[in-house]
Amino acid sequence: SGEGAVAEAGERHLALAKPPGSLGRLEGLGARLAGMAGESPPPVPGSPAVVVCAGDHGVLDRGVSPWPREVTAAMVGNFCGGGAAVNAIARTVGARVSVLDVGVAGELERHPSLRGARVRPGTDDLSRGPAMGREEAARAVLAGAGVAEELVESGGVDLLVVGDMGIANTTPASALISALTDHPPEETTGRGTGIDDETLNLKVRVVREALELHGPDPADPLGVLAAVGGLEHAAIAGVILMGAACGVPVILDGVVSNSAALVAGALAPDSLGYVIAGHLSVEPGAKIALDHLGLEPLLDLDMRLGEGTGGLLAVPLVQAAARLLVEMATLEDLGFG
Amino acid sequence: SGEGAVAEAGERHLALAKPPGSLGRLEGLGARLAGMAGESPPPVPGSPAVVVCAGDHGVLDRGVSPWPREVTAAMVGNFCGGGAAVNAIARTVGARVSVLDVGVAGELERHPSLRGARVRPGTDDLSRGPAMGREEAARAVLAGAGVAEELVESGGVDLLVVGDMGIANTTPASALISALTDHPPEETTGRGTGIDDETLNLKVRVVREALELHGPDPADPLGVLAAVGGLEHAAIAGVILMGAACGVPVILDGVVSNSAALVAGALAPDSLGYVIAGHLSVEPGAKIALDHLGLEPLLDLDMRLGEGTGGLLAVPLVQAAARLLVEMATLEDLGFG
Repeated sequence: SGEGAVAEAGERHLALAKPPGSLGRLEGLGARLAGMAGESPPPVPGSPAVVVCAGDHGVLDRGVSPWPREVTAAMVGNFCGGGAAVNAIARTVGARVSVLDVGVAGELERHPSLRGARVRPGTDDLSRGPAMGREEAARAVLAGAGVAEELVESGGVDLLVVGDMGIANTTPASALISALTDHPPEETTGRGTGIDDETLNLKVRVVREALELHGPDPADPLGVLAAVGGLEHAAIAGVILMGAACGVPVILDGVVSNSAALVAGALAPDSLGYVIAGHLSVEPGAKIALDHLGLEPLLDLDMRLGEGTGGLLAVPLVQAAARLLVEMATLEDLGFG
Repeated sequence: SGEGAVAEAGERHLALAKPPGSLGRLEGLGARLAGMAGESPPPVPGSPAVVVCAGDHGVLDRGVSPWPREVTAAMVGNFCGGGAAVNAIARTVGARVSVLDVGVAGELERHPSLRGARVRPGTDDLSRGPAMGREEAARAVLAGAGVAEELVESGGVDLLVVGDMGIANTTPASALISALTDHPPEETTGRGTGIDDETLNLKVRVVREALELHGPDPADPLGVLAAVGGLEHAAIAGVILMGAACGVPVILDGVVSNSAALVAGALAPDSLGYVIAGHLSVEPGAKIALDHLGLEPLLDLDMRLGEGTGGLLAVPLVQAAARLLVEMATLEDLGFG
């Protein structure tokens, strides 16, 4: 069982050829991986994949980001072409890159790495009405779940990383985090790609207006997602839910995936048992969301790019945590039992 | 030139297809790598190696560690056999493991991974007299430099990680850090493998006695090393010096390598331009040493094992920092110039 495997991994760490506790957070991480796999030592993940979920946002019309909407589609093309940060880091850690169009506004060329499951070409402005309908939100969740299932069941993927692309998508992320943790918009809203003070004030006001307009009910996570979320946020929640259902660890990236994990946890609390916080984004909402989820990030490198970049950098840490349990000799093996 | 390459890398980061600064500390790290290589973008390190320097310590007779001296030799055998934590993590990040006996007290079996350059079978008790002679310290430095040179010049290694093994070796590490940063032993001395309060008090007292006995002069780093250091500390300083001389980045591990970097920096300040702090050890002296060196650790995972384990975990971060500069498209490439 999961709990038995966690305990077994903890005992094994006490027997390995090292001072007890000296591998620090890798020890607890290894025990968690054993719990996810239901066996100790846990398998060493050898086929990681990042799923980059992309969508556009009606709220961009409020001026919450200086970047044009067209950048979302252009970056999806860049992911497929291999020239984005996520590709460079994926190659470094040996992960494949899968891109999911769940709500991009522009035209996209077909590509083997791109899964087209567009629910609608971007959300509506969440500060003036619901970002999308409940059924649309559900379809976006299922699109993410579908990609995760295909990667794991057909592709042999044994470690998932979630990433996001969508100009203006930290605005719905802040709204989701405020709605699901009850922290006010001033605390959950940050500078995203690097906006100035004036734009930040506007962004906080927009998030506040959205919360006042919808009065989102945390007991209805799908309703919260539809009212103030984004299509890629929904899809990432789906990747998390399916990863957990398949027993595969899911590494979070920054604030967008952190907000999606809040949704996944609200829909199915047990799914959080499979979630690993890859890094701490600079966005203030990230820490609020992770604290709420009880997750401590592995890395803190002042990153705020998204795409899955920070999550991918944690892949070797997860692999190492498992491998140490599998491959290390014990003190007894060395004659010091 | 180095400075020109740093500036070029900074400009390239502003042009890449991402918000400026969004890759956080990977951007500064990439610029540093460009400076080390003297070109931007810098080469992507593809052949990392960890050098685990091993030695024994006369000061163990004072009771500063509960582990028997024989563990040092046994762990060297374990490194060669592939069953130690450093081996598991090296396999995870694709690094080779090279072991250097520069001062182990026990007999060791020959092994292709083991370089025998024993200066003497362990140091003398630094609290009762000099740990070793000046010439012995110099020979240990040269042994480390020799291994580094061979790895880089003959082995094609382009990224070095330094690690340590030696029962009781955090005691000389604390003494070196106190001597070279002028922080008192209470601040630089920690629990090492996990000693109790009583042993910690003894360890602090032993370090204080050593400093009072020798009055080490920070202007004479080799004298400091001989008086209160260790053979593996000396060898690690040699790896750092030779890595820097060959233009290869050197990633530090925990407190022992941090103390050795203080020695290297005191001997040749320019060598620090090639040094990267891989992680922050739990040992309190680690932060003091890194602050003194002006280095910010990449990882903070509550580790305190040594062997090079924490340094190796930073290898993918270093590789990613270079690769991003080499492989990412620019905004102009995507039509947003």
